Amino acid sequence: MLSIKQLQEIITNEIDQLQLPEYPAELYEPIRYLLNLGGKRMRPVLTLMGCNLFSDGIQGAIKPALAVEVFHNFTLVHDDIMDNAPIRRGKATVHEKWDANSAILSGDVMMVNAYELLMQVPDSKLRDLLTIFNKTAIEVCEGQQIDMNFESREYVGVNEYLEMIGLKTAVLLGCSLQIGALIGNATTEEAEHLYQFGKNLGIAFQLQDDILDVFGEPEKFGKMVGGDIIANKKTFLLIKAHELAQGENKANLERWLTTKVFKTEDKVKAVTEIYDQLNIRKLAEIEMQHFAEKALFHINQISLSESRKQPLVEFAEQLMVREH
Amino acid sequence: MLSIKQLQEIITNEIDQLQLPEYPAELYEPIRYLLNLGGKRMRPVLTLMGCNLFSDGIQGAIKPALAVEVFHNFTLVHDDIMDNAPIRRGKATVHEKWDANSAILSGDVMMVNAYELLMQVPDSKLRDLLTIFNKTAIEVCEGQQIDMNFESREYVGVNEYLEMIGLKTAVLLGCSLQIGALIGNATTEEAEHLYQFGKNLGIAFQLQDDILDVFGEPEKFGKMVGGDIIANKKTFLLIKAHELAQGENKANLERWLTTKVFKTEDKVKAVTEIYDQLNIRKLAEIEMQHFAEKALFHINQISLSESRKQPLVEFAEQLMVREH
Repeated sequence: MLSIKQLQEIITNEIDQLQLPEYPAELYEPIRYLLNLGGKRMRPVLTLMGCNLFSDGIQGAIKPALAVEVFHNFTLVHDDIMDNAPIRRGKATVHEKWDANSAILSGDVMMVNAYELLMQVPDSKLRDLLTIFNKTAIEVCEGQQIDMNFESREYVGVNEYLEMIGLKTAVLLGCSLQIGALIGNATTEEAEHLYQFGKNLGIAFQLQDDILDVFGEPEKFGKMVGGDIIANKKTFLLIKAHELAQGENKANLERWLTTKVFKTEDKVKAVTEIYDQLNIRKLAEIEMQHFAEKALFHINQISLSESRKQPLVEFAEQLMVREH
Repeated sequence: MLSIKQLQEIITNEIDQLQLPEYPAELYEPIRYLLNLGGKRMRPVLTLMGCNLFSDGIQGAIKPALAVEVFHNFTLVHDDIMDNAPIRRGKATVHEKWDANSAILSGDVMMVNAYELLMQVPDSKLRDLLTIFNKTAIEVCEGQQIDMNFESREYVGVNEYLEMIGLKTAVLLGCSLQIGALIGNATTEEAEHLYQFGKNLGIAFQLQDDILDVFGEPEKFGKMVGGDIIANKKTFLLIKAHELAQGENKANLERWLTTKVFKTEDKVKAVTEIYDQLNIRKLAEIEMQHFAEKALFHINQISLSESRKQPLVEFAEQLMVREH
């Protein structure tokens, strides 16, 4: 079986070789730019791993793995417009470097490209894979809309939040694995367990992201620590703190959430202190652990040797202890 | 065989019955709103006509016809953001009524919905139909990008313009017919002729649009006559006038194109007079006729009775003599 590093290399090579037209340049340059910004290539690697779990040959999963990566990048380029984000992976976002119109339209083309790549599978699997992909694509859009709706709401519940990240982030990890599994000739049931593994892992992954944004070490995290606090982003941490804070903590939290003018380091420090007093980090870790365990439960339902499943288990463990 | 009116009613009924989730409302309300704005339903009607040409039963073409209509509406909602258009079919555009974010995201969902609808065909046809659809979808995006590029260019050639409208407008008419034909069990060759019929008709249709925008009768045209002139839109008429104008006409045209402050009626009147002196309307009609004849050539290559082809020929004729 291939290591994660080997799988990442396969994906990177394939992306380098992806043929895109030259004309019109305003449409295809942003696509090349975005796909070459790098990233962990987590989703396509999961597709290859999902396939490799059931089959030694992974050749047939490579184009569908790219489909998932191209789709993911389509969501990034459109989300970045909606979120008004200037930076993606340390570089200017597409709508900043070109303009919003190019970002909308090159995103649209990437969506079609994703379908073209996904279709490079045998006829016998085509409909099933497209059906899973369609369902996931719609859920990802729903997740993004719900996330945007949260911005204008005063209070969001923990369960609503978990549902949102399930849609916006987690289902695509599940889908990536499920598609790979089916290409590797898994049964429907096995592929469904792998989907649930990926989805639950995705929720755990996002909770870890929320934790790292506050408690990560700046030099390892790769972006500014405390960004979510500064933006009042309704993460698991803030939602939980909102739920638990009483008395002085509650008043302080409210004040920091409504104060418009502040030194960023003051706000980050003050809100982090409130989180500490309410033991929020621990609670987030328990929640994360809960979803990681659900993920492992599902992979354990698949009747294959432990050694065969080892790379995926390892991948899950790495996600949970990562520092960036 | 069914009349155009009957086919339109089938489509309208189906759109009324289209099931969309309620939540999140910000995502699905814009879709319902846009699909219910009406319009001629030209593309789905063409899919049904394409099917009906080869098969008496059209049931199997209904969902794919809706796919084409939903895809068309996806392009409208994204184009309207890019073009900053406030009005669509006499009502506020989605990005005006909601916001640009909802317009981007509900467009994205419609794109996926289009694939879901198109997939409601037998397995034996699935790959071919998706392949045609993907190719067309990408061409439509390319056409939109090229059209936007034209805005910042001083000079555009007639052939470039015809290529652009071919992509932006005409290929989808061809695709609509081709998909219908294949569902109706046409041969690949017959379906290709019908595609060419639709594509050439689409170019003629857009040229007619350009003509009507200047020379249409206001009460019949349904929108302000002269909108293209006011906006300096590089239509066939302006491009041709630019190519032919000499001396005083040339100087006047340049002046109107560069003057920033003007009474709209003065500009429309003056530019129309230049068009009249250069016989632009006639030249546009000749060009339109040329593509209409190419369209008819292709439908004549299909070995079916004239009576069978009559509805499509009639449809083409109606497009050419329409007043709105």
